[in-house]
Amino acid sequence: MAQLPKAITNLVSMFERLPGIGPKSATRLAFYLLNTPLSFVEEISNDLIKLKKDIKICNVCFGVSENETCDICSNDKRNKNQICVVERAIDVMALENVGGFGGVYHVLGGVLNPLNHVGPEDLKIEELIEKLNGRPRSGGASDDFEIILATNPTMEGEATALYIRKKIRETNSEIKISRIGSGLPMGADMEFADQATLSRAMEGRTTI
Amino acid sequence: MAQLPKAITNLVSMFERLPGIGPKSATRLAFYLLNTPLSFVEEISNDLIKLKKDIKICNVCFGVSENETCDICSNDKRNKNQICVVERAIDVMALENVGGFGGVYHVLGGVLNPLNHVGPEDLKIEELIEKLNGRPRSGGASDDFEIILATNPTMEGEATALYIRKKIRETNSEIKISRIGSGLPMGADMEFADQATLSRAMEGRTTI
Repeated sequence: MAQLPKAITNLVSMFERLPGIGPKSATRLAFYLLNTPLSFVEEISNDLIKLKKDIKICNVCFGVSENETCDICSNDKRNKNQICVVERAIDVMALENVGGFGGVYHVLGGVLNPLNHVGPEDLKIEELIEKLNGRPRSGGASDDFEIILATNPTMEGEATALYIRKKIRETNSEIKISRIGSGLPMGADMEFADQATLSRAMEGRTTI
Repeated sequence: MAQLPKAITNLVSMFERLPGIGPKSATRLAFYLLNTPLSFVEEISNDLIKLKKDIKICNVCFGVSENETCDICSNDKRNKNQICVVERAIDVMALENVGGFGGVYHVLGGVLNPLNHVGPEDLKIEELIEKLNGRPRSGGASDDFEIILATNPTMEGEATALYIRKKIRETNSEIKISRIGSGLPMGADMEFADQATLSRAMEGRTTI
């Protein structure tokens, strides 16, 4: 087999290291870029470097930001009494795309995963607990306060949500803690749903 | 909805312009890159620029090359009497990955597509015909000479193959011209094959 030019194989092997891109897609991308103008490739190349240089971690929610504090956390109109706890910054984006949530976020930076040596100290759990300090423990304003645990409904996400719930309850027995709903996704067919999802859908039934 | 930092949205919209990458994959890639070291991103960024700067078009086969003439065309061991005509440079790679073909290639740079205003003058057809000039028209060496038309078995690819066959025959009635085989792909199930493929498979049957 004849060797492809190095400039192509190098790029292909870089692309292959990206998530969701296999050898075929990587090759296809490289050849596609070969046929695009230099200006387009330069633009992507600059955007890549800019991404790493311009993006900071928000010092309040640990999401992505252009400044020390992100647009959401520094927005006076967002309800600081409603904190939605998510695994990663991309989850913030998913929820923001839906719209409708007026509170703020707290990005954990992952989930508890003992097999991969990710423990509570690797996540922003302590920082979440600190945010709750000084919150009224009963009556009045505390009624409006809510922690929404929106980690993924996977084994690790569930364990992380339960762990955080336990940690909060250790020091604070009043704060409202909720878990995002799980059940059948919209448009799904009961016939093809897995047992865990169906059982959750039944448990999570609501009165209409 | 809160706006994502510009460095992210810019990169996402660049990624979306690449083939096979939708809004979700684009966002996923951008967030993945956010969590990789700067060195990795710089490496990709450099490789992209290098791709455009280092890669030339081979002056013999019009495939990709690091030099004026590509490794295949400048390789004395390749049989120059067997020319495999393909649509794009990436097709050369697909065939080279299989191995087994000892001839050389000729990259057309596309297929005839009147709807997209791609005519014979936009492809390297004239250059192919020129390569055949001076080839012996009968007996001896001409028996070894072969043009393999390996354009895709699509409507455009078929039309292009037929057009090239006609053009060659106008000046040269002896040269062997062949078309790559088409039929059921390996591992396929007759039950699910489309009619055009099945009909081709029947026409292309071989004695065993």
